[in-house]
Amino acid sequence: MTLTQALGRLRTPVRPAMDRMQRRMDSIVKPLGSLGLLERHMVKIAGITGTAHPDLQSKAVVVFCADNGVVEQGVAQSTREVTRIVAENLAGGDTCVCAMARVAGARVVPVDVGVAADTAGIPGLAQRKVRYGTGDFSREPAMTRKEARQIVEVGVNLAGELHAQGVNMLATGEMGIGNTTTAAAVAAVLLDLPPQRVCGRGSGLTDRMLARKIQVIGGGVALHRPDPADPLDVLAKVGGLDIAGMAGLCIGGAVYGVPVVLDGVISCVAALVACRLAPGVVDFLLPSHLSEEPAAALVLEELGLRPILNAGLRLGEGTGAVATFPLYDMMSASCETMVTFADEDMEPYRPLGGPAS
Amino acid sequence: MTLTQALGRLRTPVRPAMDRMQRRMDSIVKPLGSLGLLERHMVKIAGITGTAHPDLQSKAVVVFCADNGVVEQGVAQSTREVTRIVAENLAGGDTCVCAMARVAGARVVPVDVGVAADTAGIPGLAQRKVRYGTGDFSREPAMTRKEARQIVEVGVNLAGELHAQGVNMLATGEMGIGNTTTAAAVAAVLLDLPPQRVCGRGSGLTDRMLARKIQVIGGGVALHRPDPADPLDVLAKVGGLDIAGMAGLCIGGAVYGVPVVLDGVISCVAALVACRLAPGVVDFLLPSHLSEEPAAALVLEELGLRPILNAGLRLGEGTGAVATFPLYDMMSASCETMVTFADEDMEPYRPLGGPAS
Repeated sequence: MTLTQALGRLRTPVRPAMDRMQRRMDSIVKPLGSLGLLERHMVKIAGITGTAHPDLQSKAVVVFCADNGVVEQGVAQSTREVTRIVAENLAGGDTCVCAMARVAGARVVPVDVGVAADTAGIPGLAQRKVRYGTGDFSREPAMTRKEARQIVEVGVNLAGELHAQGVNMLATGEMGIGNTTTAAAVAAVLLDLPPQRVCGRGSGLTDRMLARKIQVIGGGVALHRPDPADPLDVLAKVGGLDIAGMAGLCIGGAVYGVPVVLDGVISCVAALVACRLAPGVVDFLLPSHLSEEPAAALVLEELGLRPILNAGLRLGEGTGAVATFPLYDMMSASCETMVTFADEDMEPYRPLGGPAS
Repeated sequence: MTLTQALGRLRTPVRPAMDRMQRRMDSIVKPLGSLGLLERHMVKIAGITGTAHPDLQSKAVVVFCADNGVVEQGVAQSTREVTRIVAENLAGGDTCVCAMARVAGARVVPVDVGVAADTAGIPGLAQRKVRYGTGDFSREPAMTRKEARQIVEVGVNLAGELHAQGVNMLATGEMGIGNTTTAAAVAAVLLDLPPQRVCGRGSGLTDRMLARKIQVIGGGVALHRPDPADPLDVLAKVGGLDIAGMAGLCIGGAVYGVPVVLDGVISCVAALVACRLAPGVVDFLLPSHLSEEPAAALVLEELGLRPILNAGLRLGEGTGAVATFPLYDMMSASCETMVTFADEDMEPYRPLGGPAS
C-alpha cells in the first residue's frame, strides 16, 4: 500500500463501540471512573477495534533499526556499530525489550530500515533497508523525500502484515545510535521551538556534548529550512529512518484498526509526524510512558495524550510501551469477569448530591 | 508476634546485595540507568531480600476489609453494607483486583479486620475481626489503643504467614466505605496539615459532601487531639482497622524481608503510620501509583517514595499495586537473561566526556 492509498483508507473511531465500552466500565462494581486513564484507554480501544469486547491477546512491538549520519558530529556517546550489534541481539531475543516481551507474551519484530552495515545474514531481522544510514544532516539532507516516503510505507505495510497474522495490539520501538538527536530536530521544526527546549541527554551526554548536540540541531535546521507544514520534508531533511518507519506504523494502525502503543520520545515524535500527515491518526494511538527527554512531554501535550507510566525510563527499543501491555490484559480481564451493579442489585457508586446515610 | 517483638526484629537492607544488583544493572547492554525507577526498585528489592537474584514469582495482595463508623456523618456516597458485599466478592474472586491478580499470577488474600457484619460464613475470607467496624470518630474514638495494636499485629503476622507459605512479594489493599475519610484524618494529624489540604473526593463526592467531609475530619481531630508523635494514638482515635492492618503488613515486610508494594492513598497513609512507628520500614516499601487523593502525593513525598504509575487510579483493593506486579517480572527477566557488555566485548554506554566519533 502506498502512503497516498493509506491516507485515503484511514478509519475513524467507532463511536457506538466506545459508548458500549463506557457503559460496561460504568456497570462493573467499582467507583465510577476509578480506573482513570486505563478506562479511557479501553474506551479508545473499543473505538479503534469497533467492539466493546476487543481481543488484545496477540501483541507485537516492532523495533525499527537504523543509523543516523549525524553521529559523525559527536552527538552520541556510542559509535554507530552499536546499532548493528543491538539489532542482532534484538533478533536473537537478547535485549531488554525481548525479555520484557516474553513476560508480556508479546512478539518482538525487529526490522532493519537503514542500519549502516550489512545485516542480511542475521536470522530474524526483517530486511526493509532503503539505504545504509541517513546522511549527516549537518551537511546534507538525511535522506531523499522518496526514501522518507518509502520507509513510511514500510511501516504502514508492516502494520498490515502483522494485522493479517492476527496481531491485535502494536507498539513502536526503535534502535539507532543518534536518534534522540534526529527526534529533537524533527520536534524542534514541527513544534516551532528552539533546539534547547527539546534536546536532552539521550543515553547520558555530558554538558559539553549536550551543548554540541543543540548546536548541531540548530545548524541542521538553519541549513535545510524544512517546511513545518510538510512532514515528509522534515523527515527527509533532519529525520531518521526509524522515525519514518514508526510514523508509518502509526498510520497503519489507523488503516487496519489496530491500537498502536507509543514508547518514548522517538516514538512520540514519529507519532507527531503521523498526526501531521493525518490528524485523525491520534485516535489510534495509546501513550505509555513519559520519557525523560524534554521533547516527549511537549509532543504528548501537543497530541493531547497523557502517559500512564512516569518512571524515568529512557532505554528505547519499545520497552516503555511493552511495560504497559500487561495493563491491557488486566483491564480486559476486569471487563470480562467482574460482577456488575445489576448482578448485585446495587446502586452504582454515583455522586448522590447528598449524604449517603 | 507482638508489635513490640516485631519492632525489635526489623531487618535493615543488605548493602552488598544492593551493590551487586546495581553492578548487574550497569553490566547489561543498555544505557546506564535507563530503566529509571524500575532499576532503583530492583536495587531496593536486592537490599530487602538480601540477594541480587531475588525470586519474586509468588506474589500476594492482602486486602484488609473493615467498616468505619464515621460514615454515619455522610462522608461517603455508599452505605456501609457495600463493604460486606465487596468483601464477599473479593473472597469469590469477583472484583477488579481479583481479575487483575489472575493476569499477574498473584494471590488475593482478603481479610476481615472489622467488617460491621457477620462474615464468618464467607468462604475464603480470613477472619481477624476485633470489632464490628470502628466508632464514629466525630463522637467517640474509632477504637481502643489495644484494638489498634491488635490489628497492627494481625498485619505483621499475616506477612509472616504468607512469607512462610513462600510468598516473596506482598501488596497492600483495602476495602471499606469511608476509608478515604479516616486516611485523610490520620494524614492530617501525622503531617500536621489542615484537613482541606489532605481531603479528596473519595469515590466521587459532590462539593457539598466534600465540605462536610473536611468539617467532620476537622471536628474529630479537634475533639480527640491525637498525639502526632504516637502513631497508635492517632490510629485509635481517628484511624481505621484497615489502615492499622496495612501498617502491620508494612512492618511485617521489614521483619521477614519481603518487599511490600503500596497501593493508593489509604495504603500510603498506613505506610506513614508504619514508618512513624519505625522509620527503617520505608526501606522495605515500594510505591506503585499516584492516587488522585491529595494526601497521596503529600505522604509519598514525606516518605521519599516516587510512584511509577500516574494514571488517575482511585479504585483501591490493591489494584494500583497489582498493576505494577508484571513490571517486576519484566525486570527480573531482563536481569536474568540479557547479554552484558562483557559478553559483547563492548564499552558500557557511559558518559565519555567527549564526542563519540
